[in-house]
Amino acid sequence: MSSKLKEFTEKINGYINSIELVKQPEELYLPVDYCLGNAGKRVRPLMALLACDMFGGDIEHVTGPAVGMEIFHNFTLMHDDIMDEAPLRRGKPSVYKKWNANTAILSGDVMFAMAIQHIAQCPPEHLKAILDLFNKTVIEVCEGQQYDMNFETLDKVTEEQYINMIRLKTAVLPAACLKAGAVIAGASKQEARLLYDFGENVGIAFQIKDDWLDIFGDEETFGKQTGGDIIANKKTWLYIKAFEMANEAQLRDLRNAFTNRIFNPEEKISMVKNVYLQLGLDQTALEKMEEYNIRALGFLDKIELPKENKKDLKKLAQNLLDRKI
Amino acid sequence: MSSKLKEFTEKINGYINSIELVKQPEELYLPVDYCLGNAGKRVRPLMALLACDMFGGDIEHVTGPAVGMEIFHNFTLMHDDIMDEAPLRRGKPSVYKKWNANTAILSGDVMFAMAIQHIAQCPPEHLKAILDLFNKTVIEVCEGQQYDMNFETLDKVTEEQYINMIRLKTAVLPAACLKAGAVIAGASKQEARLLYDFGENVGIAFQIKDDWLDIFGDEETFGKQTGGDIIANKKTWLYIKAFEMANEAQLRDLRNAFTNRIFNPEEKISMVKNVYLQLGLDQTALEKMEEYNIRALGFLDKIELPKENKKDLKKLAQNLLDRKI
Repeated sequence: MSSKLKEFTEKINGYINSIELVKQPEELYLPVDYCLGNAGKRVRPLMALLACDMFGGDIEHVTGPAVGMEIFHNFTLMHDDIMDEAPLRRGKPSVYKKWNANTAILSGDVMFAMAIQHIAQCPPEHLKAILDLFNKTVIEVCEGQQYDMNFETLDKVTEEQYINMIRLKTAVLPAACLKAGAVIAGASKQEARLLYDFGENVGIAFQIKDDWLDIFGDEETFGKQTGGDIIANKKTWLYIKAFEMANEAQLRDLRNAFTNRIFNPEEKISMVKNVYLQLGLDQTALEKMEEYNIRALGFLDKIELPKENKKDLKKLAQNLLDRKI
Repeated sequence: MSSKLKEFTEKINGYINSIELVKQPEELYLPVDYCLGNAGKRVRPLMALLACDMFGGDIEHVTGPAVGMEIFHNFTLMHDDIMDEAPLRRGKPSVYKKWNANTAILSGDVMFAMAIQHIAQCPPEHLKAILDLFNKTVIEVCEGQQYDMNFETLDKVTEEQYINMIRLKTAVLPAACLKAGAVIAGASKQEARLLYDFGENVGIAFQIKDDWLDIFGDEETFGKQTGGDIIANKKTWLYIKAFEMANEAQLRDLRNAFTNRIFNPEEKISMVKNVYLQLGLDQTALEKMEEYNIRALGFLDKIELPKENKKDLKKLAQNLLDRKI
């Protein structure tokens, strides 16, 4: 990791560790502590700090809002895990599984308020703009989650619908983090918008890579399959393209697999994966990811700053898209 | 209703009706529309407008935040109904019952963000103060709901613990609405605090009346019992005082009723109600309510404004405590 990425990550974790999380009633706060302590990569707040730093802003001014965005992100995971019945989160039992759904609802709600408390640490002259950006983003993330749930019962989802769903569910939050950093650093509207567009496209690329990793990723690194999306009949980019491109025999295989006529999970995964490989989707997905990455970099290039200022953010985005797990 | 109460209620409903609620995806927004359309008495936003008006403020400045508080209140109902498994809300199926728990979670979450959008309509110079007040209140409401859930499995709850729980769950929100109105009108910190304390005590009195109505209310007005709190083994003020005051025979009846050894609901209600009546709790509860009401009015009296300015707020509080249903 470049030294700035490391330094800023430590800054974020230091801020989070300084928050007094376990208060009374403990039943409400222990799950919050558990959720925020099970640290992810802190990518979203890192983006906010990098964006601020890029425009020569003082990262002290953005750390509060950045952590607010991270708390909000963890809140969405807590509620999503109930809705998606996901037993695991970052390798540990999800809150809804470790405690119960009611706990995950209420501890999630309190995290939402905590998120805004930290957003409100923003310099007063930017508070309204950052709050508006945050609210718009929260609403879009909820819309994305709703579309994702709607897709479960839809017969056909187009690539366009899918990209719009992941844009809302996944991409607008990192985009908003970048924009928040830019705004607080005093960047122009135009520059903040370019950084937002960069973040949105990186976010979409990231999610396509995520879909890819679920089926092709672990195998490469660890020599084992996961295929959780296939088991869950998730309408991922690979799923949608496969149905678009499949010939009759392949369509039959896909339909058999996804209508649960194949009950053995390994058989199901292998059947679907075979079709994906026959159609070359392992390559096409990475090309699609790269397409969004290139589009993202195009927006970043338009920002008139020395290359040096952009290199850490570029590095972070590249790390995200190169990741193996 | 006094003409000002009517005028301000219409103003609030007009504002709410002007919000474009049904957007895409409909699955997310229809429950929001259903919930906000199933209008309550709009007591909380009304308090914000009355407080602002009392100090000579412009109610246009407070209507947005007041509606934000109302949306937040409705959000808490949507999530509480899941946690409490409450099938009905204001006489209609609750969102979780009409749709499902996932819908109530996610549509609730989007309402939370909408609430902050309207809070953010506050005059910029007061935004930070109002946002801080709102966040603190949201966190306290969550704490109150958690204590309420904790009480379900506690053997003994003291009166003090109970009052603290309803203070958090029920009373801090109207108190915050009043304070928000005062702050936006430019009242002093001291005056805003007095109005907050008034609201908190009215809120506690209101909840004690609510507990009372559940068992003694409907009977008076409609000649029928409800007793939902008794059926649900809710540790209300009446429940707590009854266990404190009961003699051996009464204790045996209470224990039999509340450990579900009595399976017939009517028999259970009548058994508990008998003990409450023997102990005179129907009167004591109203005296306790009046005690908080008097304390509330004491705070209101300390605000140095002409009586005329306080009369509508006083009237609203009196209506709340006099209500029969």
